[in-house]
Amino acid sequence: MAPALGEEPTTKRHSNGSSKTPSTQTEVSKLVEKLQKHGNPALFVTPDHQIALQETEIPIPQPHEALIHVRCTGICGSDMHLWHRGAIGPLLVDRPCILGHEPSGVVLATGSAVTNLLRGDRIAIEPGVPCRSCWLCEAGKYNLCESVAFAGVCPTAGTIRRFITHDARYCHRIPDTMTFAQAALLEPFSVILHAIRQCHGSVGIGRPVLICGAGPIGLCALSAVAASGSWPVVITDIDGAKLDFARKLVPKAQTYKIDPALTPAQASEEIRKLFGCAPRDLEKMVPSATEYNAPSTVLECTGIESSVITAAYSCRRAGLVMVVGVGRSTMHNLPFMQLSLGEIDLRFINRYSDTWPAGINALNNGQVVNLDKMVTHTFPLERAVEAMTACADPGQATVKVHIVDDTVVEV
Amino acid sequence: MAPALGEEPTTKRHSNGSSKTPSTQTEVSKLVEKLQKHGNPALFVTPDHQIALQETEIPIPQPHEALIHVRCTGICGSDMHLWHRGAIGPLLVDRPCILGHEPSGVVLATGSAVTNLLRGDRIAIEPGVPCRSCWLCEAGKYNLCESVAFAGVCPTAGTIRRFITHDARYCHRIPDTMTFAQAALLEPFSVILHAIRQCHGSVGIGRPVLICGAGPIGLCALSAVAASGSWPVVITDIDGAKLDFARKLVPKAQTYKIDPALTPAQASEEIRKLFGCAPRDLEKMVPSATEYNAPSTVLECTGIESSVITAAYSCRRAGLVMVVGVGRSTMHNLPFMQLSLGEIDLRFINRYSDTWPAGINALNNGQVVNLDKMVTHTFPLERAVEAMTACADPGQATVKVHIVDDTVVEV
Amino acid sequence: MAPALGEEPTTKRHSNGSSKTPSTQTEVSKLVEKLQKHGNPALFVTPDHQIALQETEIPIPQPHEALIHVRCTGICGSDMHLWHRGAIGPLLVDRPCILGHEPSGVVLATGSAVTNLLRGDRIAIEPGVPCRSCWLCEAGKYNLCESVAFAGVCPTAGTIRRFITHDARYCHRIPDTMTFAQAALLEPFSVILHAIRQCHGSVGIGRPVLICGAGPIGLCALSAVAASGSWPVVITDIDGAKLDFARKLVPKAQTYKIDPALTPAQASEEIRKLFGCAPRDLEKMVPSATEYNAPSTVLECTGIESSVITAAYSCRRAGLVMVVGVGRSTMHNLPFMQLSLGEIDLRFINRYSDTWPAGINALNNGQVVNLDKMVTHTFPLERAVEAMTACADPGQATVKVHIVDDTVVEV
Amino acid sequence: MAPALGEEPTTKRHSNGSSKTPSTQTEVSKLVEKLQKHGNPALFVTPDHQIALQETEIPIPQPHEALIHVRCTGICGSDMHLWHRGAIGPLLVDRPCILGHEPSGVVLATGSAVTNLLRGDRIAIEPGVPCRSCWLCEAGKYNLCESVAFAGVCPTAGTIRRFITHDARYCHRIPDTMTFAQAALLEPFSVILHAIRQCHGSVGIGRPVLICGAGPIGLCALSAVAASGSWPVVITDIDGAKLDFARKLVPKAQTYKIDPALTPAQASEEIRKLFGCAPRDLEKMVPSATEYNAPSTVLECTGIESSVITAAYSCRRAGLVMVVGVGRSTMHNLPFMQLSLGEIDLRFINRYSDTWPAGINALNNGQVVNLDKMVTHTFPLERAVEAMTACADPGQATVKVHIVDDTVVEV
Repeated sequence: MAPALGEEPTTKRHSNGSSKTPSTQTEVSKLVEKLQKHGNPALFVTPDHQIALQETEIPIPQPHEALIHVRCTGICGSDMHLWHRGAIGPLLVDRPCILGHEPSGVVLATGSAVTNLLRGDRIAIEPGVPCRSCWLCEAGKYNLCESVAFAGVCPTAGTIRRFITHDARYCHRIPDTMTFAQAALLEPFSVILHAIRQCHGSVGIGRPVLICGAGPIGLCALSAVAASGSWPVVITDIDGAKLDFARKLVPKAQTYKIDPALTPAQASEEIRKLFGCAPRDLEKMVPSATEYNAPSTVLECTGIESSVITAAYSCRRAGLVMVVGVGRSTMHNLPFMQLSLGEIDLRFINRYSDTWPAGINALNNGQVVNLDKMVTHTFPLERAVEAMTACADPGQATVKVHIVDDTVVEV
Repeated sequence: MAPALGEEPTTKRHSNGSSKTPSTQTEVSKLVEKLQKHGNPALFVTPDHQIALQETEIPIPQPHEALIHVRCTGICGSDMHLWHRGAIGPLLVDRPCILGHEPSGVVLATGSAVTNLLRGDRIAIEPGVPCRSCWLCEAGKYNLCESVAFAGVCPTAGTIRRFITHDARYCHRIPDTMTFAQAALLEPFSVILHAIRQCHGSVGIGRPVLICGAGPIGLCALSAVAASGSWPVVITDIDGAKLDFARKLVPKAQTYKIDPALTPAQASEEIRKLFGCAPRDLEKMVPSATEYNAPSTVLECTGIESSVITAAYSCRRAGLVMVVGVGRSTMHNLPFMQLSLGEIDLRFINRYSDTWPAGINALNNGQVVNLDKMVTHTFPLERAVEAMTACADPGQATVKVHIVDDTVVEV
Repeated sequence: MAPALGEEPTTKRHSNGSSKTPSTQTEVSKLVEKLQKHGNPALFVTPDHQIALQETEIPIPQPHEALIHVRCTGICGSDMHLWHRGAIGPLLVDRPCILGHEPSGVVLATGSAVTNLLRGDRIAIEPGVPCRSCWLCEAGKYNLCESVAFAGVCPTAGTIRRFITHDARYCHRIPDTMTFAQAALLEPFSVILHAIRQCHGSVGIGRPVLICGAGPIGLCALSAVAASGSWPVVITDIDGAKLDFARKLVPKAQTYKIDPALTPAQASEEIRKLFGCAPRDLEKMVPSATEYNAPSTVLECTGIESSVITAAYSCRRAGLVMVVGVGRSTMHNLPFMQLSLGEIDLRFINRYSDTWPAGINALNNGQVVNLDKMVTHTFPLERAVEAMTACADPGQATVKVHIVDDTVVEV
Repeated sequence: MAPALGEEPTTKRHSNGSSKTPSTQTEVSKLVEKLQKHGNPALFVTPDHQIALQETEIPIPQPHEALIHVRCTGICGSDMHLWHRGAIGPLLVDRPCILGHEPSGVVLATGSAVTNLLRGDRIAIEPGVPCRSCWLCEAGKYNLCESVAFAGVCPTAGTIRRFITHDARYCHRIPDTMTFAQAALLEPFSVILHAIRQCHGSVGIGRPVLICGAGPIGLCALSAVAASGSWPVVITDIDGAKLDFARKLVPKAQTYKIDPALTPAQASEEIRKLFGCAPRDLEKMVPSATEYNAPSTVLECTGIESSVITAAYSCRRAGLVMVVGVGRSTMHNLPFMQLSLGEIDLRFINRYSDTWPAGINALNNGQVVNLDKMVTHTFPLERAVEAMTACADPGQATVKVHIVDDTVVEV
């Protein structure tokens, strides 16, 4: 998309003979030949809910593409859905498909039309390649492009394999000081970065923010909200261990453990107490004099109905509930009267656009800290099935699982 | 709030001896004495769902208030709720209360601190007087003020009576060319004006807009949307007669009669056809190539669950569903996945702020036309109960009922 | 960009054998051969400020392009600059170039990849074809694309000729009820439509708006602002005849003739009087009690320094001065203290994005009226030089000059 | 305005007998009597540019006011202007006036209508008390209220004295962990907080921001921008020592020392280099391929013409130049063509609204760090004249000078 901060202008780098990147068809063919010895095992999911590592061909880059050695791919909750349910929303596993959409890696070769990458560049990879031609792309909303080719979503092959090709425009160079693990975290972080941007400034210095859910997306939200200067910040979950983890990421954050015995309205009262709000009459839910203290922005990161309702009751008048992810096709019991009387906006986001350069800036320079603490488990590519199994096992208490490949690839 | 367009500066008017306004306490007392002969019958509603006209005292204006002869008050659907259900949302009829919050009238006298009004001024009256001191008032959202004194909502007396007092700041002078009926329509029109403003420009020249519901608020929306240059405009209702009426207001508007046999998703497909959209697969609801043509803004003016759901399915990706009114405390079956995948905003409004001066400008200068065609029935104050009964009777097919008082009051 | 309202879905149309569009290379070649008899005269401008009609080749459409018979092109003020000054801003006439960027026409043939157009389609043509690949295109701001190929700006050939090719995506089908003259007016109208959209809702029902300048862009602004429901609307110019013309377009608009003897601050006082504002002290320019009535939006359409300054002094506190066009590289005497104390935004626009479909909707359905009254002079293509000369001659009092071609082209 | 975070509800606190606050007239009178022994010396400035400490009366609080022992007041650049030039913008020293508008202190007594404060409360004080009645107050823009009573601006007495009264609503309780020095810094910090909020989200995680000027306001901007997660951040000044200081506040910030020999356009090229931008042709200033890296927001904190012009040339296309302060009534040589071609917004702010609670949250919880390092010089109230003299003396290299009063006042 855009060169990362501080890089030398592209033309200069290209004049540097020593980093000559193979780009003629012959050169690339030779290189791919050389790579065969490493093989290209890929993690497949099938419509009948099987996962397995299978050998695949090494792809040849198109003129605008790069050939990439994938060094790390994070596993996402949606990978679990594709595996166990064979679908996520309208996206179906209708044929065997390679999983993975949170990648980072190293450029091995570039197609003839590529100008922003050189062999050896370490990169974070944006998994979706939009059409750049529909009205949504034209309107600056490529995240909503209906023709996007999104890695790991049928029929586009994912990144849990050794070698991939990818549109060079969506490969973002990272600084030497950034690890491949951090670079792979840019994908979930991008979801939150996009969500916060859609808040149009309501997340910011000294603003009270509530985060519902302390899974990987909720934790990214916590890091990002703290990095935005918001305060007080409260994060909720039904799982106390996740909240313990949240406090490791952002020690000063307040946490609230959801009590399943409480109604969403009752839970919202407990949450608002942490912000310094006096109680409301649960019948009328009319704002108290301390309504000002209530969170003006709620980032809903669970997709669970009771949590969305709790978010609506927690939000202050004239505030915003940003629904980051949705798991079910419909929701019930939404407190419309509450939203209406308070002019509380309910907004939604779907993926992200133009977030990698900002994410790289922020993660590399210490604006966002501790994010890589989220990576609790790491498996080599060869043990990808095991990685998926660990993710699916509550007993292992994984937060973010990474699949890495440290194979030495000489080019 | 602010002087209407084109008025002479206040100081100039005050130097005009001929329109000397009584403002000393003695003068006002004398005047009120003189008015006693006219009586002050008021329409009361009681907690046990009775309505009756009863004589009341003529109020004395406070220093910042005007004494007003109410010339017209429109009846609103919420008056029906207060009567038949004894409540609307959290607002209760917990004691006998005078109804009415869509008034216009003539200034009879002003308190000593009033500078923006003179005796004889014809005015439109904003029914809510906010506290001007809470954080919502301070933030420019006085429509959300929890301490607002709103005419016709307990314990604040409404305007279906002959004489009222009201904070002069919320009395807006109207031009001679504007009728009292038009002035009384500014209240429902304000709801829509506020809603359109909260759309931040998405209602505008050549933009496709859908309006759900052809009751009084939906009709105001239709007029306002047409006056904003939006096109195409489609309005829906389950009642064909209401749609016929809508076409009288805005002849070019397209109408769609809701078929109760269709699901909201199916209805949305029919509605989208009118905008030039090709059909979607009802299972997946994935946007077609003609998604661009779909309404980018939907003004939901029914408060009915199925209509809100239809609105959500009709709206184009990256669009906005503005929920203008809500009747029930919770809603079910909201298509969250559809809203989420399309980043469709769901916003809500509650009343209005700073809309009268703009409404007066627009209605008086022909930007908004035909609005007074909505007034299908007019009753004198003495027959106020009959007016309410007519409103409640579907057989009478009322659109907007006005209660007027043409008593000649010499001051 | 997008199909116009109400069109049948593309696939359906393609199945209609009768309107079979030549799209194979052979068919197109044959067609071009057939067209040779009509010739392709084009209006050139040279770096040494000459203009002349010269014969040119008929271009062959690329796969994504249409071959078009240009039926009408409007002449723009910038064409005058390119002719007489050899430049407009950083855009230079550094070689002979064909002028023209306000075109409409008829599709003669389409490249093999075109799906939105058929032979015989009447179209309005968006003159700029952006790269769709730079970060500005990706961000939804293709109007700022640095690699845009803009018709009539070196080195891209303009549309004052008989036959052109153009990217089909930027060809917008118009309804049968729209004339080619109206379709050609969509280009200047788009400038204003984009400007009003960038006002984010501040132009709208009952809002007071000031328009500085009654040239073609100012007149488009006047039509569009009136169509947006804004009121009161005042338009200024130094030329009384232009203001007379403005009142023909929008009879109720108020006009103010700039008196060159007045300073901008003094002129602003006269203008504000028309909005119902009391005078300010010219030393301090502190808002009076009637500041509320002042225009909250000013559309500056002259690019003249004194007019920009007048706009700044006229605008109400917390308002917006939208600078639509700029003639000079720098400006002086900007009243920064006035802008700063009043938090008055100064915004700028450059061209437009995604405006044709909305413009077609609005012009075709009567939201925007009278715009074609602006076309005071029409010349056939053969007399294009004469058309340019008329434009340059103040004595001829042209408003908008159109160059048309009614040659019967059978295909 | 609103209770600070985490406070107990007001009613609870009032039931605490031990902190009984004098509020009857008699109690307050007795208290004031008791305070007489401390005197009430105040720093006056006169129209003939003299400053002197003079004894004044101890004011009696109105029902809605608090009587306050001022513990700290910061000196602002505008105080220097009022002293040396007798004016700042339209605000004149037309009579002897007490200076000071950056105060913090302790509540000694409260008027009978005060509910948000108790005796002994440590508070930060918002110096401006708006009318809450004009249309700007009603629109949520009380910072633009023309009838504001602003401490330290004629005819409203400032806070450089021992005892003041102030509207309780604009007294904000601070936590025990916050110093009076920090509380006094909330006023200049509020200017920046308001400015950043008006950027509507363009200052945020990973966004490149340029700050022009490293005086106290520029330093507040630097702290706030870093606390917002923006990166890279570059700050400029003509004075290298100020830039050294800036790096102490935010060690990772990049600094650029303005070279007076360069034109603004040339300076902008140097600045953009630090953001990773390739050079532009100084004639054309057409964006390079690395334009993406340029600052999308520029906070102009000098009010100097050459700096504003540099800001305009530095800003990236579609970006925003926020002019935080203005020193001169008019500006020249503004590069309008550059702003216009790039659609770069030029916005302005004037003071702040609703910033104290957020500022307290952020300063107290470590979102904004190091701000009190700015206080380089502290003088007791008795040496206030000396404090002003130090401020005016470049040789003393003051950043922020505080006047404090540690007198023990028992109540």
